[in-house]
Amino acid sequence: MKVILPVPTAQRTQMIDISHEISRVVQKEGWQNGLLTVFVPHTTAAVTINENADPDVQRDMLYEINKVIPFDDGFHHFEGNSAAHIKSSLFGVSEQIIVEEGVLQLGTWQGVYFCEFDGPRQRKVWLSFLKNTVS
Amino acid sequence: MKVILPVPTAQRTQMIDISHEISRVVQKEGWQNGLLTVFVPHTTAAVTINENADPDVQRDMLYEINKVIPFDDGFHHFEGNSAAHIKSSLFGVSEQIIVEEGVLQLGTWQGVYFCEFDGPRQRKVWLSFLKNTVS
Amino acid sequence: MKVILPVPTAQRTQMIDISHEISRVVQKEGWQNGLLTVFVPHTTAAVTINENADPDVQRDMLYEINKVIPFDDGFHHFEGNSAAHIKSSLFGVSEQIIVEEGVLQLGTWQGVYFCEFDGPRQRKVWLSFLKNTVS
Repeated sequence: MKVILPVPTAQRTQMIDISHEISRVVQKEGWQNGLLTVFVPHTTAAVTINENADPDVQRDMLYEINKVIPFDDGFHHFEGNSAAHIKSSLFGVSEQIIVEEGVLQLGTWQGVYFCEFDGPRQRKVWLSFLKNTVS
Repeated sequence: MKVILPVPTAQRTQMIDISHEISRVVQKEGWQNGLLTVFVPHTTAAVTINENADPDVQRDMLYEINKVIPFDDGFHHFEGNSAAHIKSSLFGVSEQIIVEEGVLQLGTWQGVYFCEFDGPRQRKVWLSFLKNTVS
Repeated sequence: MKVILPVPTAQRTQMIDISHEISRVVQKEGWQNGLLTVFVPHTTAAVTINENADPDVQRDMLYEINKVIPFDDGFHHFEGNSAAHIKSSLFGVSEQIIVEEGVLQLGTWQGVYFCEFDGPRQRKVWLSFLKNTVS
């Protein structure tokens, strides 16, 4: 069964590093070797993997995507958040991460980020694990 | 073995909700608990997960992506559909969806959309399932 | 355990077809039926699946993404490669590919491309396989 991780957001657009929260679930569930799926059950948010060192990277990423896909552009959708829907599809709502010996396999500078594009809101992330039966 | 789902498209760019067709395959194949891969074997189409309620969301998404990546922009590719190739890579050609008790785990407002960027054409989607052996 | 594939790049932005290298690993490892994950452990590179015939498609894709996300745009990140970080998240750092009878299941015109957005560099790709236990 999937594990549900709550992710409260605080701004209209925001990238939140959830790597540690995910690692804690992997450890607590005893997930050892296999593939972890991180799935966002929302349509105006996303999940991505990117640099975890300089916070200016997240600032620049949000600045640029909000410029390329402006909040208002003659959209028809009555809720007025079409830009957030587009950003969600461009970044994507799931990531698959290799797990070995209970450790998330990420590059040195990689972190897992929840991407809020229409906040602030109370969000969730779903985690599901497939065990490797090969070796 | 993968299951092949035919997806005829009717317009140059179009988002088609294939959630019900996918659910029917999951049910027919008896796929219970695990991870479903939805894979698009084309290079000018994609698959995405987004809002399934207001059709204006799809209209706005196609409007905006067709504006950001225009059909013509001095491209060299002789077939004249480079914009569609780029959109395919930006949206992505596969989605992974958690399945529990034979039910696709999607958020309340999420649907699975085939994205046509160079239609109309006769398209296909491949479905493949990995069984969860953890619990 | 994941297999590590070295990918040297030669240009600032570049798409490199790694389909054959991946197929060789699948064959050597004896991976028969299941799901292959191709994971890029970098934050200024990506992996995508797109046309493997006319090289002008890759030229057009890089031309257009470099135009939509310019190298310089008042970014704050001190390393000056924020554009590459954004492109990495838009294209994505992993792909999942179905494997049947030891053969990568790709469409007729599809190849797997390593995307360099901040090269040239010595890069790596991680490959991991989940065996299908359904049939």
